Amino acid sequence: MNIDGHHYRTIWLADDGWTVEIIDQTRLPHVFAVERLQNVEDAARAIEIMQVRGAPLIGAAAAYGVCVGIRNDPSDETLAAVVRRLGETRPTASNLFWALKKMFEALEPLAAGERVRAAYELAAQICDEDVETCRLIGVHGAKLISDLAKPDGAPVNVLTHCNAGWLATVDWGTALSPVYHAHNDGVAVHVWVDETRPRNQGASLTAFELARHGVPHTIICDNAGGHLMQQGKVDLCIVGTDRTAANGDVANKIGTYLKALAAHDNNVPFYVALPGSTIDWSLSDGAQIPIEERGEDEVLKMSGRLPDGAVALVEIANEGSPAANPAFDVTPARLVSGLITERGVCDASLQGLSELYPNYSKTR
Amino acid sequence: MNIDGHHYRTIWLADDGWTVEIIDQTRLPHVFAVERLQNVEDAARAIEIMQVRGAPLIGAAAAYGVCVGIRNDPSDETLAAVVRRLGETRPTASNLFWALKKMFEALEPLAAGERVRAAYELAAQICDEDVETCRLIGVHGAKLISDLAKPDGAPVNVLTHCNAGWLATVDWGTALSPVYHAHNDGVAVHVWVDETRPRNQGASLTAFELARHGVPHTIICDNAGGHLMQQGKVDLCIVGTDRTAANGDVANKIGTYLKALAAHDNNVPFYVALPGSTIDWSLSDGAQIPIEERGEDEVLKMSGRLPDGAVALVEIANEGSPAANPAFDVTPARLVSGLITERGVCDASLQGLSELYPNYSKTR
Repeated sequence: MNIDGHHYRTIWLADDGWTVEIIDQTRLPHVFAVERLQNVEDAARAIEIMQVRGAPLIGAAAAYGVCVGIRNDPSDETLAAVVRRLGETRPTASNLFWALKKMFEALEPLAAGERVRAAYELAAQICDEDVETCRLIGVHGAKLISDLAKPDGAPVNVLTHCNAGWLATVDWGTALSPVYHAHNDGVAVHVWVDETRPRNQGASLTAFELARHGVPHTIICDNAGGHLMQQGKVDLCIVGTDRTAANGDVANKIGTYLKALAAHDNNVPFYVALPGSTIDWSLSDGAQIPIEERGEDEVLKMSGRLPDGAVALVEIANEGSPAANPAFDVTPARLVSGLITERGVCDASLQGLSELYPNYSKTR
Repeated sequence: MNIDGHHYRTIWLADDGWTVEIIDQTRLPHVFAVERLQNVEDAARAIEIMQVRGAPLIGAAAAYGVCVGIRNDPSDETLAAVVRRLGETRPTASNLFWALKKMFEALEPLAAGERVRAAYELAAQICDEDVETCRLIGVHGAKLISDLAKPDGAPVNVLTHCNAGWLATVDWGTALSPVYHAHNDGVAVHVWVDETRPRNQGASLTAFELARHGVPHTIICDNAGGHLMQQGKVDLCIVGTDRTAANGDVANKIGTYLKALAAHDNNVPFYVALPGSTIDWSLSDGAQIPIEERGEDEVLKMSGRLPDGAVALVEIANEGSPAANPAFDVTPARLVSGLITERGVCDASLQGLSELYPNYSKTR
């Protein structure tokens, strides 16, 4: 998508042909900065501290992390160590493990001398496939928005949580791809952007990318969505997912479950957008998805712009009080109106997913 | 309650016998500062910018606002103007209108020369009654906590939203009074403190007062409560209310409704603590409660401590993105396990409230 008229993906190869470059998302929306990844530690750290985040982009970054990790030493030992290191970065998003498995299974049988070139080719392919997957999610999901278009031209109000936009993928996004497609097709659409504490991906990233693309939007506190639904001000919710169980339960950013409850209580359709790579066919339900606990500083401190434009980190809570910081929650399939995938929209159920992914579902 | 060993109320008379002093809650938890109110504009502004907040304390501050407002001119015109000005400060909490009505009806029939002394006496009485009311709420509510005490001595986990502690009242608090009473009685209790965006009354005020009183607590993002309930980590929710409809619907800080939905979905008891003065018998249900819309800066900016200890306001969101800021939402009575009042615990229903308040309910 575009930033100030310039087209970007979230991850790409530098001019030297091997260094990986990313948009440092920890510095958005205050500073737009590009970071260079040149070894496995650079890549692992970028995932851990969330310079790259979002399930699909984590997968892409892990794939390129294998590339830079084995570039100087494509031995069996290094390949295994690199895959292990990258696999320890974040526990919830299944795309990480999906991408690492894909890389390892393709590279491990090759002679060491052939691995680097093959790794870069496969990582590029994973990225290109992600772009196409997200584009298709948008095409299928845009119909849900245009079906709600209002005769008086008033915008369709979509509520989203966290950032499942193009910054969470290689391009287009998952939950926001339908929004971009509807907007590009001329459908009037307005997005309620959940701030998404503690890391504020909504206020920082979703608002950033919607603003740069020209999509009308309003930031709200995470607390406000239920009230807006009670008032009839939300026509549709679309969120992403970091891992989808075979029964359609989804693990997404903490707080998603609360919005799904409110949508259900107010008869607002609640859709989850996902690439097939987030489906963990080995899990019969979401209760088995490991939930990452992150550090308390994310809750107790916040970064922002001072009046002089400098970025500062301030302590916002009562000094000395501890905090807990679970990063994801599980929304049960019973609260999900449907899943928007690159293969179409289906029920949030094993049957629904199996019809779209007949080959994968057999692996259960 | 105590701060660093010194007993405070939230509002009191200065040594001069007429100036009103308050704890400036906009500066907590970073700075403990006392503010002086000497005329009606001081008092109205203190309510508007939330130097005092919380439904019971707003009522007490409005009563003292009448005192300082008529002190130099207790004429009919000034009395009416002062009541009108204070009544325009905040629209949702019914205690504001309850206290102003009580003051006006007591003062208006008096000769002008008798009004100032009577006003100060009545304001002091409103404050003393609030303390006793909150104490009784604590006595009744503490039983709900002690009934959940665990044989192994593990703490009863109470989740609360916003600040309905002693800082929201004259002393003791509403939702936190049961917690203080249980804690003082030796019951092991731990409080999950919702941060409560956008003004962070949980992380700032609830955590501050619990810490000063020595009650174990953990700050969480507003997004986390549903997940904690799914995990069995919440035994009981207790929140306050700014206005209670006759059918038991409650208007409380934005986001309360989402926690009530999660409690209902996970069979966690959800109680609302309130003094009788928050009941608006004229409203048959909560849909009629006016919901205050506050400015977008509360969402887009945040204050905190810089590393050098100075307090700074930082812009946290994408520059140029608009925000919406509804301050309250309505939790329907069907999601409320019971109401904890100074007269005991009752069902969240017209019948439940009428049994506790038979005389008031006849005014409907």
